Amino acid sequence: MIVIHSEEHRLQAGRSELNDGQLVPCYEKPARADIVRARIEAIGLGPIMEPTRHGITPLERVHDTGYLGFLQTAWDEWVVEHGADIDALPLNWVAPGMSRRRVPRSIDGRLGYYSFDAGTPITAGTWRAATAAADSALTGAARLRAGDRSAFALCRPPGHHAGRAFYGGYCFLNNAAIAAQSLRDGGAGRVAVLDVDYHHGNGTQEIFWERGDVLFVSIHADPTDEFPYFCGHADETGAGAGEGANLNLTLPWGTDWSIYAQALAAAAERIRDFGADALVLSLGADTYGGDPISRFRLLSEDFLRMGAAIAGIGLPTLFVMEGGYAVDDLGVNVANVLTGFEQG
Amino acid sequence: MIVIHSEEHRLQAGRSELNDGQLVPCYEKPARADIVRARIEAIGLGPIMEPTRHGITPLERVHDTGYLGFLQTAWDEWVVEHGADIDALPLNWVAPGMSRRRVPRSIDGRLGYYSFDAGTPITAGTWRAATAAADSALTGAARLRAGDRSAFALCRPPGHHAGRAFYGGYCFLNNAAIAAQSLRDGGAGRVAVLDVDYHHGNGTQEIFWERGDVLFVSIHADPTDEFPYFCGHADETGAGAGEGANLNLTLPWGTDWSIYAQALAAAAERIRDFGADALVLSLGADTYGGDPISRFRLLSEDFLRMGAAIAGIGLPTLFVMEGGYAVDDLGVNVANVLTGFEQG
Ligand SMILES: [Zn+2]
Ligand SMILES: [Zn+2]
Repeated sequence: MIVIHSEEHRLQAGRSELNDGQLVPCYEKPARADIVRARIEAIGLGPIMEPTRHGITPLERVHDTGYLGFLQTAWDEWVVEHGADIDALPLNWVAPGMSRRRVPRSIDGRLGYYSFDAGTPITAGTWRAATAAADSALTGAARLRAGDRSAFALCRPPGHHAGRAFYGGYCFLNNAAIAAQSLRDGGAGRVAVLDVDYHHGNGTQEIFWERGDVLFVSIHADPTDEFPYFCGHADETGAGAGEGANLNLTLPWGTDWSIYAQALAAAAERIRDFGADALVLSLGADTYGGDPISRFRLLSEDFLRMGAAIAGIGLPTLFVMEGGYAVDDLGVNVANVLTGFEQG
Repeated sequence: MIVIHSEEHRLQAGRSELNDGQLVPCYEKPARADIVRARIEAIGLGPIMEPTRHGITPLERVHDTGYLGFLQTAWDEWVVEHGADIDALPLNWVAPGMSRRRVPRSIDGRLGYYSFDAGTPITAGTWRAATAAADSALTGAARLRAGDRSAFALCRPPGHHAGRAFYGGYCFLNNAAIAAQSLRDGGAGRVAVLDVDYHHGNGTQEIFWERGDVLFVSIHADPTDEFPYFCGHADETGAGAGEGANLNLTLPWGTDWSIYAQALAAAAERIRDFGADALVLSLGADTYGGDPISRFRLLSEDFLRMGAAIAGIGLPTLFVMEGGYAVDDLGVNVANVLTGFEQG
């Protein structure tokens, strides 16, 4: 399986995130991608190539142009106001009785307008790292269009929490959604996105909410208890042309493989029924028992089974890296999904 | 003028707030009320009395019962999950595509559900301090009903950013709205709330948005540039029965008294036209030139003029303390409004 990866991921190295009432070192850090790359090289999964630059046009297919403009200039505006010694974090968000109809002028106002947490610092390198990740996903999609059975876009920062016009949950550009749209634009009639990250892929759901041509299926911790809390329930099934093309499979804290496997089988069946021509797989490994911010109990060998189950769907598959914060074991867990797929 | 004040305000002493990308010591701190009380004693403004306990019923007249229940137990739930060494701050907020239709179960989820910033820590004493402040406002309202021309509820924490079911901007219970409702319930046919805090009183606006019997007028920094950003524009005039009973007078950064006085005159005219029987005055002194988080340029002597202009409205007036973070000068500035009123 070809792997697409850019070293520019390192340019996103936030200093701290708000978590449990404190500013703590960022869980989403460069070492995450490094260890996955190292493991892939160690097992010889396949060649690692640099992404091709795709420019802003494919990003605008799923993101708001005002939002993209904000992401490009936010750091420079922040530095003018607050200096370069602190990463950019927002001040406040939209409460009941407030409205999104006007974009604020000041950078602090726009940071809150376009975000949904204080865990996702914008840094000097955010835009370059995020676009390199999106380019990796787009390059992977191009491989599928060229006939590859699979590809792995080793994206960092991740993407599935980023929506049409917002960032959060460590995500700025929705790499999986950008790739899915690219596959559609390249001729695939129907595309499925399967999100196995521990957290609900709220950004992907929001982007494709009214789309009948892109199925979104997410297996994740019940948002009643878990981030992002306000999205990802089972009764969220899409709207308009997208009604029925959104499936949320919620699982309780403590979920192990025996439970997870059933949800994955249900997801696979739904994707087969949909009649997709290609699959984008949002690959978070924070379902791992050792993950520091998550509460599922998958073991490293379960990720081999996960890969095999995904192979069983029988579609050309683009894997796109999402979350996973147990860094020491992240390389093995991610590589296990990919080798499980290849052997599946 | 009688002053109502509880020493229980000290029980709200947050350790830090998220501001400009950092956790910094809370601007909203006990010393704020202490210096105002000291100045009031020094000039002999009037007797200082303890508030009467009013219980939860008058709070439920303007706040959601689920929200009040959350505020009462949030700290204890936080301690179970995260310990008592860190104040409770939320993790994330509602983005586009997310929904408020379900209240999360976990404390982190509910902190985000019921808040709009990470600048308003919930501590062990938040509920007691906030209810003591609400009781001060209610006791002040009772003085007006008993025939006093004026009273000053020296509330802390402040209230005007708190809405029916949310906290933020250092505010938990909307003391001014609770008092205004109490005046209505006590027989006043129409009540006006005038908010002279530097920041828009978004909570008060939200609470009375569809009410034609309570006029809300706010003079504040243009939210295009300033917190709370997503609320407080001039074209927000109320809805339903409240259409026309909401007036936002927005002023630019750098506003001095010559500009401010014109807005205050317009506010006074609107309140007189409304035919209010009583006035609740949300008294923030963060319009002061020396305020560390604000950008107006009022001088200490301008607050005397402000008090005189408020007296000119000619209504029984309950002053309710809101913001003001230039602590050293806060006592003089607040007392100046009150003495300006008495002499006006
Ligand atoms: Zn995740
Ligand atoms: Zn203020």
